[in-house]
Amino acid sequence: MKPIVPTLRTTHRRLPDRGSHERDVIEAILDEGLVCHVGFAHEGQPYVIPMSYARMGDRLVLHGAPGSRLLQELGAGAPVCVTVTLLDGLVLARSAMHHSVNYRSVVLLGRASAVQDEAEKRAALRAIVEHVVPGRSAEARPPSEAELGATLVLAVPIEEASAKVRAGPPKDDEEDHALPCWAGVLPLSLSTGTPVPDPRLRPGTPVPLTVAGYRRGR
Amino acid sequence: MKPIVPTLRTTHRRLPDRGSHERDVIEAILDEGLVCHVGFAHEGQPYVIPMSYARMGDRLVLHGAPGSRLLQELGAGAPVCVTVTLLDGLVLARSAMHHSVNYRSVVLLGRASAVQDEAEKRAALRAIVEHVVPGRSAEARPPSEAELGATLVLAVPIEEASAKVRAGPPKDDEEDHALPCWAGVLPLSLSTGTPVPDPRLRPGTPVPLTVAGYRRGR
Repeated sequence: MKPIVPTLRTTHRRLPDRGSHERDVIEAILDEGLVCHVGFAHEGQPYVIPMSYARMGDRLVLHGAPGSRLLQELGAGAPVCVTVTLLDGLVLARSAMHHSVNYRSVVLLGRASAVQDEAEKRAALRAIVEHVVPGRSAEARPPSEAELGATLVLAVPIEEASAKVRAGPPKDDEEDHALPCWAGVLPLSLSTGTPVPDPRLRPGTPVPLTVAGYRRGR
Repeated sequence: MKPIVPTLRTTHRRLPDRGSHERDVIEAILDEGLVCHVGFAHEGQPYVIPMSYARMGDRLVLHGAPGSRLLQELGAGAPVCVTVTLLDGLVLARSAMHHSVNYRSVVLLGRASAVQDEAEKRAALRAIVEHVVPGRSAEARPPSEAELGATLVLAVPIEEASAKVRAGPPKDDEEDHALPCWAGVLPLSLSTGTPVPDPRLRPGTPVPLTVAGYRRGR
């Protein structure tokens, strides 16, 4: 697997101690996220759209309808940015100024290409389902030929990427430690509720472990 | 308050029944989100950066360091896109193809301007703290003159914006309802853990209600 080489575009100028170009760190964040935010420019106007995705080795894959203007432009090789952000906590400092958020994020720059090969396309769609709900692709009906044809799959190489991580307690000014105000971190996480069966679910269909045991995050 | 007028750029061509330009819908999503994804283009390359924000009436405010390249370009009037996404659930269909995500998102297009007026700047910073932790600005030390000078505040008018919402059960193909596979929605929400006091917190400082009673979402 190729190393991730820092470029001028992915080097953190502000708070560089929060930045990382290590593949392990980047992959762990991509693997935990559920939704990415895809940025592209059209006639000078940037757009940011939330999308599902998956990591397949050193590529990130996206999918959508072949008629989508966004996906068409990206598949034609327009520059793209894919950002994944995980919220870990609210950082409450003694001063308003030092309030912050604990988070882990990845910014991936590059160009996408359309995945044409049918087997590769199937693998990518399977990866997206597995990314969101591990084990689910063994339960659900796989895509038909027609469905495969009606889906555009894009891949972005994970080469020019960087991670940014803020963790730990607030960093207050020395003199503010005397203030009577509570300070610390309120942890945040994504939690699941009780599964809601489809109104047309056949009575007696058990909730599978992929759903009943679903857990995301650390 | 000005109405939000749909433009060609904010009209949903795909799945238009999921789209909305109603100010109430847009504001509710903006008010619930904790982090926005800010998109801008630099030398043809799009970038998407997660940031804190707040809504102040019909403007969205952002803040950061005056040395930030991103904020400088945006403050100079470069086109920007601000996207806020809330995840409500995983939609598990009987076919891989119809798997989806229940979400609410807002895409805001426009141009930012730097907030120069000191009172307005103070109000914007207060709004950001209040947006993240309601009530917190009464507990924490407000920004000093120096801190105010060291913060750049940007405002984006909420005029060209649209919301997109997916809710409800999966939409399977008619013939797939005979499959034995479980189908339904796994609800997702942001939950809080036990507050972690700052290691230097003065012993006996109680956890305030703003933190102990913190709740986000519906």
